[in-house]
Amino acid sequence: MTLSPIQDPASYLARHIGPDQPETEKMLSALGYKDLDSLLDAAVPAGIRENGIPHLAPALSEADAQQRLRAYADRNKVLRSYYGQGYYDTITPPVIRRGILENPAWYTAYTPYQPEISQGRLEALLNFQTMVSELTGLPIANASLLDEASATAEAVGLMSRAKRKGRRVLLDSRLHPQVLNVATKRAQALELEVVTEDLSAGLVGEDLIGVVLAYPGTEGDIQDLRPIIDAVHERGGLATVVTDLLALQLLESPGALGADISVGSSQRFGVPLFFGGPHAAFMSVTEQLKRQLPGRLVGVSVDAEGNPAYRLALQTREQHIRRERATSNICTAQALLAVTASMYAVYHGPSGLKAIAKRVHDLAASFAQALETVPGVSLRHDSFFDTVTVNVPGRAEEIRATLAQAGYLIRIIDADTVSVSFGESATWGDVSVLADAFASGLVVPTPSSATSSRIPENIQRSTPTLEHPIFSSVHSETQMLRYMRLLSDKDLALDRTMIPLGSCTMKLNPTAGMEPISWPGFADIHPYAPEEYTQGWRELIVELEGWLAEVTGYAKVSVQPNSGAQGELAGLLAIRAYHVANGDSQRDICIIPQSAHGTNAASAALAHLRVVVVATAADGSIDLDDLEAKLAKHGDQVAAAMITYPSTHGVFEDTVQTVCRRIHEVGGQVYIDGANLNALAGLARPGVFGGDVSHLNLHKTFTIPHGGGGPGVGPVCVAEHLIPFLPGDPNQANSGAISATQFGSAGVLPITWAYLAMTGAEGLAQATAHAILGANYLAHGLKDSFPILYTGAQGLVAHECIVDLRELTKQSEVTAADVAKRLIDFGFHAPTLAFPVAGTLMVEPTESEDLAELDRFIEAMRTIRKEIQDIIDGAVAYEESVIHHAPFTAAAIGADEWNYSFSRQEAAWPVPGLYRAKYFPAVRRIDEAYGDRNLVCSCPPPEAFELDHQD
Amino acid sequence: MTLSPIQDPASYLARHIGPDQPETEKMLSALGYKDLDSLLDAAVPAGIRENGIPHLAPALSEADAQQRLRAYADRNKVLRSYYGQGYYDTITPPVIRRGILENPAWYTAYTPYQPEISQGRLEALLNFQTMVSELTGLPIANASLLDEASATAEAVGLMSRAKRKGRRVLLDSRLHPQVLNVATKRAQALELEVVTEDLSAGLVGEDLIGVVLAYPGTEGDIQDLRPIIDAVHERGGLATVVTDLLALQLLESPGALGADISVGSSQRFGVPLFFGGPHAAFMSVTEQLKRQLPGRLVGVSVDAEGNPAYRLALQTREQHIRRERATSNICTAQALLAVTASMYAVYHGPSGLKAIAKRVHDLAASFAQALETVPGVSLRHDSFFDTVTVNVPGRAEEIRATLAQAGYLIRIIDADTVSVSFGESATWGDVSVLADAFASGLVVPTPSSATSSRIPENIQRSTPTLEHPIFSSVHSETQMLRYMRLLSDKDLALDRTMIPLGSCTMKLNPTAGMEPISWPGFADIHPYAPEEYTQGWRELIVELEGWLAEVTGYAKVSVQPNSGAQGELAGLLAIRAYHVANGDSQRDICIIPQSAHGTNAASAALAHLRVVVVATAADGSIDLDDLEAKLAKHGDQVAAAMITYPSTHGVFEDTVQTVCRRIHEVGGQVYIDGANLNALAGLARPGVFGGDVSHLNLHKTFTIPHGGGGPGVGPVCVAEHLIPFLPGDPNQANSGAISATQFGSAGVLPITWAYLAMTGAEGLAQATAHAILGANYLAHGLKDSFPILYTGAQGLVAHECIVDLRELTKQSEVTAADVAKRLIDFGFHAPTLAFPVAGTLMVEPTESEDLAELDRFIEAMRTIRKEIQDIIDGAVAYEESVIHHAPFTAAAIGADEWNYSFSRQEAAWPVPGLYRAKYFPAVRRIDEAYGDRNLVCSCPPPEAFELDHQD
Repeated sequence: MTLSPIQDPASYLARHIGPDQPETEKMLSALGYKDLDSLLDAAVPAGIRENGIPHLAPALSEADAQQRLRAYADRNKVLRSYYGQGYYDTITPPVIRRGILENPAWYTAYTPYQPEISQGRLEALLNFQTMVSELTGLPIANASLLDEASATAEAVGLMSRAKRKGRRVLLDSRLHPQVLNVATKRAQALELEVVTEDLSAGLVGEDLIGVVLAYPGTEGDIQDLRPIIDAVHERGGLATVVTDLLALQLLESPGALGADISVGSSQRFGVPLFFGGPHAAFMSVTEQLKRQLPGRLVGVSVDAEGNPAYRLALQTREQHIRRERATSNICTAQALLAVTASMYAVYHGPSGLKAIAKRVHDLAASFAQALETVPGVSLRHDSFFDTVTVNVPGRAEEIRATLAQAGYLIRIIDADTVSVSFGESATWGDVSVLADAFASGLVVPTPSSATSSRIPENIQRSTPTLEHPIFSSVHSETQMLRYMRLLSDKDLALDRTMIPLGSCTMKLNPTAGMEPISWPGFADIHPYAPEEYTQGWRELIVELEGWLAEVTGYAKVSVQPNSGAQGELAGLLAIRAYHVANGDSQRDICIIPQSAHGTNAASAALAHLRVVVVATAADGSIDLDDLEAKLAKHGDQVAAAMITYPSTHGVFEDTVQTVCRRIHEVGGQVYIDGANLNALAGLARPGVFGGDVSHLNLHKTFTIPHGGGGPGVGPVCVAEHLIPFLPGDPNQANSGAISATQFGSAGVLPITWAYLAMTGAEGLAQATAHAILGANYLAHGLKDSFPILYTGAQGLVAHECIVDLRELTKQSEVTAADVAKRLIDFGFHAPTLAFPVAGTLMVEPTESEDLAELDRFIEAMRTIRKEIQDIIDGAVAYEESVIHHAPFTAAAIGADEWNYSFSRQEAAWPVPGLYRAKYFPAVRRIDEAYGDRNLVCSCPPPEAFELDHQD
Repeated sequence: MTLSPIQDPASYLARHIGPDQPETEKMLSALGYKDLDSLLDAAVPAGIRENGIPHLAPALSEADAQQRLRAYADRNKVLRSYYGQGYYDTITPPVIRRGILENPAWYTAYTPYQPEISQGRLEALLNFQTMVSELTGLPIANASLLDEASATAEAVGLMSRAKRKGRRVLLDSRLHPQVLNVATKRAQALELEVVTEDLSAGLVGEDLIGVVLAYPGTEGDIQDLRPIIDAVHERGGLATVVTDLLALQLLESPGALGADISVGSSQRFGVPLFFGGPHAAFMSVTEQLKRQLPGRLVGVSVDAEGNPAYRLALQTREQHIRRERATSNICTAQALLAVTASMYAVYHGPSGLKAIAKRVHDLAASFAQALETVPGVSLRHDSFFDTVTVNVPGRAEEIRATLAQAGYLIRIIDADTVSVSFGESATWGDVSVLADAFASGLVVPTPSSATSSRIPENIQRSTPTLEHPIFSSVHSETQMLRYMRLLSDKDLALDRTMIPLGSCTMKLNPTAGMEPISWPGFADIHPYAPEEYTQGWRELIVELEGWLAEVTGYAKVSVQPNSGAQGELAGLLAIRAYHVANGDSQRDICIIPQSAHGTNAASAALAHLRVVVVATAADGSIDLDDLEAKLAKHGDQVAAAMITYPSTHGVFEDTVQTVCRRIHEVGGQVYIDGANLNALAGLARPGVFGGDVSHLNLHKTFTIPHGGGGPGVGPVCVAEHLIPFLPGDPNQANSGAISATQFGSAGVLPITWAYLAMTGAEGLAQATAHAILGANYLAHGLKDSFPILYTGAQGLVAHECIVDLRELTKQSEVTAADVAKRLIDFGFHAPTLAFPVAGTLMVEPTESEDLAELDRFIEAMRTIRKEIQDIIDGAVAYEESVIHHAPFTAAAIGADEWNYSFSRQEAAWPVPGLYRAKYFPAVRRIDEAYGDRNLVCSCPPPEAFELDHQD
């Protein structure tokens, strides 16, 4: 192949790739290559490039791509949504839509692992946790999960871990079908016994791990759960309550009812329907269960000056997931959506939320009251919050169709039953239209004459909600505007700096792809709307899945998994099901190299596969001898090998095809983790060079923003023989669904669609080539200052490189973490720390960083190297060095006392470029251990901050 | 009337108004009033409130208002725009749309009068000036004008002033009709002789001020202007060239042709059509004319540390407009759109822009070549850039209709002629469709076989374009994202702080109103599209004009004026025309109070009215005795009195009705400046209590954002008898048009529509009451520290208050300007400085600021008062005081040397709240005089900044 210089400077590709042609030539020349092709020939083994070029349509301009997306959006019909079943009509306040969902300062941010540059989003996530905790009445809430169905599955897993004995889990038959199906599948994968029953009759049997209860039920009915919770507690089991945050404004909290765990979705707190996602699910637990909570947890700690500071607590980082002993594979969750929901709660406050809930309930009650007068129609349940289920013998389809004609979407339960769920934008006029479809001319009682509450008195909420002052201090639009700005200003995201995180691929998120996700034709579509109203979405997704299959060389792709980890799990479950279908149910071993992402092993554990680790050779490649040894020992038990290519060491291993062949020879399947696809896309295809399954991370190679820790989308790609085992429709039992909706986080797929449409095959290859060029340019620029840990045969790395600090640490005490913190003073987000090798930093610039930014990074690292040398030379003691004390806040730099051995300028402006653009973190270095010892996971009182500067 | 507490916390009104009910009560109680009504009764004279409440529909929610706007947008038909005539199809890069037009950090900013907190937008505007200057080949360009037509009028005025003698101006008949009509009207108002002729035949006659030449002409033709420019120069006249920035990529620059002045529109540099505006016009001039340039001019100066710093040069501030000697009334221009256009140029760079121009020209040439083969069809001109005018005897309407059916909009010149203008998004496919309408099946030459350039060789561009490095350093989307963020971070806008500018009403710009302006159904509509395709726009505007008439108590409103100053001029021209029509052409005196906005007198001068100033009494009201004296002297010559109510002193004068009556009694008309309508809306109506004309500022009371110095919209409101004199259709001669399009800056009208729809009459009254409450609360909180200059009978102010520094200045040397600069260290934008009274600060908080922000301001002012007291007490010398040295950059605070008498903490964190949110300006105090002595108005070379920190 030949990569010619990009011709059209206004093409998306020219905008996507950081270096322009003169910069590219300069970089190639520094490396000693005459063009990109020569570099690729040297860096990427020829074997894997065979048949590696996908066939895609020619690249579109931004404008043409948006025009095609508009045509898709126009083919979806926006109906007023009264469908319910976990997805509700809500109003996103425009100031929050623009300020969060459409604001690159929020959506281009990375997961807040580096807390010093993440105080803004950590505060917003802590608001989310506080909100969930206060509303559910349980003290510890996490910073979001993927969706209500998988959150329920996580709750089952948590109950199972917490109880340790017992294998039986009871699921309330009143749960939403998608929740039942996903939770059942996931629990069965863990070989738990799952029983779905009508629990209103009471509990039977022993050996109980716990129960999962619906509150309200899928048909809208509300039960007093106390008797059943008490009963399960008496039997030594735990109780999970699946609930609704808006209903909890009026319903007594799960915690007050005795629940141990509460889960649900925060979608209806201002997050668009998005055809199913992304939305933030939540989980809250009792004090006793807090250390078993899956997902990320924001906690409060202190910084080096003793000021309160936020951080992720309890080390939930990917690379710290405990491999074989993993209990959850949740990494990416739904941070951006959790932030949106939390801002919605902050904006409406306790009285505003209660007013919305009250109004929704009044509308539902009024509607129900009207229907009670209609002959031949009856209510299924007397008690409800927002959802009225109606028996309409033989008329369900007729009523649905009539209302669809009028612009309303309701749910069909069965041929004789419909249900109507009221949401935030419902009006009294809507109630009349809805009622009219049941009985023409029906008079709906006006608000004043509406019947009294349909919520039984004994479960009406008596405990307070949202008492923390943050929920009562941001009530005007101006205040909200400033609050969002204040928080985002504390943080570093891609809109201010390179985020050179190895294995995370923090590349440009194209605005041309971001804009369409707000269009009503995409955003306001219910996931279970009938096909005739969602043609545009379905066609877009089919096209996108086809493109992804073409790029990866697989037979079929499903976009259902809504994170990379879910994609892994879906892929492994497909492999497991394939072996079982072939009668090979003994195949339950998953071979994983030492250097793998922690999630690989965690996902294997969740798929109930046993993990066997294969060693890594000195050059970072898989140790073939050890592989042979493992295969000899476990051959016919091998279900799969999970490998990452290029390896997590950032090197193209020559031996990958050998590894694949050997696994196949023993009857195993090859799982190629798509995490590093940014080194392959357009050049090589894992489905061609040896993989049976891969998952992708659309938030890496395919330009979906990281959103400060989600959304992610993790499509699973499979070869022909595995197609039958792809995840299916979550509304169908035993369909193998992994997410609550068929297309997972559909709402963000237009971003990837736009990226692929605007780059095309040639553009993908260009992007990949530039990613490899950028990484090698950095490696070249750094190698005289720091050893580069692994390189391939030609002395080249792939799309990332590992900077080895270990020898310097021995000489100077300066750790990789110190360097990470010191980089903040230069305005950089740290590279990946201590993964895949402790004591190192892994750097991935991506193709989107221009030469000046790469040089700025090299300059920073070289400057730090000099600072380290001063310690080695004895010019300054480690404890007194600028690195040890980094980073510096503006307040520290401007403090009246300055007792450091270095100057203020050395601390804050170590290189002159910083005078043009200087970022100050909001806090000094954070004490990680303190926060874990003193776990606080909801907003501290305001006084905690006032103490700050009063001594 | 009774203003009850706002019931619905989720209503727009509750979001718009800063203080919630408890805060409101606290503020009222501090002032000693039991409720808002009592406060209003005390503050606002009963007389003016009679019949003061408008009738408007009940307030809509944000969602409902957006739904109605969507219905309007859907009633406009987006056609592919090939119409031209000054408005061209262009592609707004998504990253710039989101980053500038949709970013509150840019659009909520005020005009950069305080340069220390405006370095970002000043840099962007300097880029605009540099771009215009380089492209037009003239050394000095301003920071934008309102539209091409009024910019041409300004050029005529400039030529007239520069020549001083001569009264004849020649207008090229090849100018766009709207340019001819507006320029003619404006020149005639100045009693210049205007002749429109075909100048290709050469010049005749003497007594010439100058000529205005079209380059290209409205039919697309291009002439070599050198002979005519030489001829006019020989006769001692000046030459203005009206041109097109995209054409100038391929055409020799006006400066190179010998032009003295160049004007035009930058719309097609990425700014949406917006149904006519807002768009930034430009003007550039020779070195000799630079001090006569109208509008705002960004210049380069140095700050207190000697670093380069930007500022507005040559004191173009409203209040400095030289009253009777005024030569232009331009204040607000089109800053936000100029920034957008400049970012477009930065993003595409010289080669990108040339490529776009080349492509547009190739398409046009190819289209022309195809038509040349068609019998019965001929080209009107052989030379053209982008616009092809075609003789189609008798077929113009048929061809237009056929193309409209196919989705294309072209221009009809007359029944036998059409013209087709190619823009950025035109494709080769489009050329075929277009050609097909002229002759079915016509084959269009492909690019490779296209004829050679249609631009005569002797005027093809030989001089370079955009050589400054800024136009070649931001080529990737990531770079653009960061560049926009970097600049906006330097600035203070409403998204970070109150901007308490008296007379400027910096209130909330509702996001619910901002979002719709980007919708294609509003943004992508050509201003001259036939009515059938613009129904939605027209209905929205009729409705809005009706609401504004109702709110102000006038008979009719025109939204055509695209700034407040244009509104004034339109109003005064209406008065003048009315008197002339009545045979009272001797009425040419305009009475203006001493305290009036400078623009009042400037507008009067432009309407050729003589200004007579009436004195102001000690309490700030008009001196009735002096008024009587002036009326006695000038009675039958009085055309009008222009008053502001409440007065610019921020006081409700009891005597306003007496003044109105007396003016009417002598046969004059009363012009009530709507600048302070935020103290009246919903409570009192100028058209009812005495006015014949008002203009409004939609960017003040009616929530259009200030955009860093524009857009503005200045509707003119008139009583019944003046309706015939409202501005008409700019495409019609003698229609009295004041702007280039019928509805001026139509594109931003949805913002005001949304505001009025979401507040309703009661909401307007609430907003006004809260504006008055806020101002009085501030006055109350400040009065023990600083004298409040004027108050009404009850000791109350209106919606703003004047803080008098003069006595303190005498005692301490601390000036009002010092206080303004020191407020920056507290994170505040300064109040209005030295207007209407030198030595004072005028503070207007607006209703959108909550109690905490008001208290924060009071705390800052009291702290500064203590700092002043230390000087008075002799504790510190003025020259050594923290105020004298304010503001402080981060670099200054963190400098290794600190030789001040105060501490770093006192300088940067004088109050503890600043530790949570601290803004640092990008530069120290700017030397205003240096910049005027050394006028530099285009981007300095990068080296200027490198010197910065190298000593």
